[in-house]
Amino acid sequence: MPKLWTDTVATHREEVRQAVLDAAGELVARDGLWAVSMSRLAEAAGIGRATLYKYFADVEEVLTAWHARQVSAHLTDLATMAAGAGDASARLRAVVERYAHICAQRSRHGGDVAAALHRGPGIADQHRQLQDLLTDLIQEAASAGTVRADVPAEQLAGFCLAALTAAGTASGPDVVVELVWTALTADPASAADSA
Amino acid sequence: MPKLWTDTVATHREEVRQAVLDAAGELVARDGLWAVSMSRLAEAAGIGRATLYKYFADVEEVLTAWHARQVSAHLTDLATMAAGAGDASARLRAVVERYAHICAQRSRHGGDVAAALHRGPGIADQHRQLQDLLTDLIQEAASAGTVRADVPAEQLAGFCLAALTAAGTASGPDVVVELVWTALTADPASAADSA
Repeated sequence: MPKLWTDTVATHREEVRQAVLDAAGELVARDGLWAVSMSRLAEAAGIGRATLYKYFADVEEVLTAWHARQVSAHLTDLATMAAGAGDASARLRAVVERYAHICAQRSRHGGDVAAALHRGPGIADQHRQLQDLLTDLIQEAASAGTVRADVPAEQLAGFCLAALTAAGTASGPDVVVELVWTALTADPASAADSA
Repeated sequence: MPKLWTDTVATHREEVRQAVLDAAGELVARDGLWAVSMSRLAEAAGIGRATLYKYFADVEEVLTAWHARQVSAHLTDLATMAAGAGDASARLRAVVERYAHICAQRSRHGGDVAAALHRGPGIADQHRQLQDLLTDLIQEAASAGTVRADVPAEQLAGFCLAALTAAGTASGPDVVVELVWTALTADPASAADSA
């Protein structure tokens, strides 16, 4: 059965849109966020500037859409890892490591602009989803006895998310993952002794 | 010897300026950052609006100056604690606790605006000073054997600062201080075992 004309148009529009966002990702990775311009986007996406302006009003709109797509993809990845096979502790460790690398990658793209994009609508909601995902996983690991149970899972999740942003600094992701993991898995009794 | 007229004027101007910043602090503590207006500032400082405008162009300028004064006072406090008597571990613990409470207080004043003010000029420099202060103290405690020495002091300091911002979330400062302290003082050998 032949596609309806409106479907074809909608599909084509979506393909162009995704191509522009792909181009944005490539430009950001290669030259940084500040180097992205409408001319370069059009060239990299293989369309004319006039066409590009039919899809996006300005660079900020492209970057916001690209960033939303990135965050959404990361969330899907993390949710898949969280729901995977294996014991809760191993899945938690994998999610923590992946998120640390996401933070490190984000800071390489220029912290200021990332911070600007992170104030966009929908971001608070996505942050909430991430917090919930981590809380459930920590809860599961705590029930299994591999993560400390003396601090509520939600508070441990909030700590993780804040602490892992340090992965974007000089420390790099691996060291930060170890420090966070130490805090999560410490025996509360011995931790109290050392204080 | 009588004061020179220019000294008297300069002193008076500085007193009015400080009174406006005091008023800003009181308004922020009572009603939050968004509630601060030039009219309320003038009233709380006990001066006319016209006079206030001779000192500050707008609310943002007042808040930026107030914020700079706050950060500077916090830095002085933390530096005094860091340089105090007692062993390095106790001083480090005190600095970590104080900074966690500063983060918690800041988030009560409205995280968005705090973030906006934190982009002001001079803030990066003050953050650097804080990072250096903490690095030196961690180095001292690590040499004394009370803080882990397997991670460079500068990286531990960066981790602390990022992780302590979680004190501004639901967890509250005390829990976050315990988690950070666990990570700092863990025996690397046993931490590796639990991973």
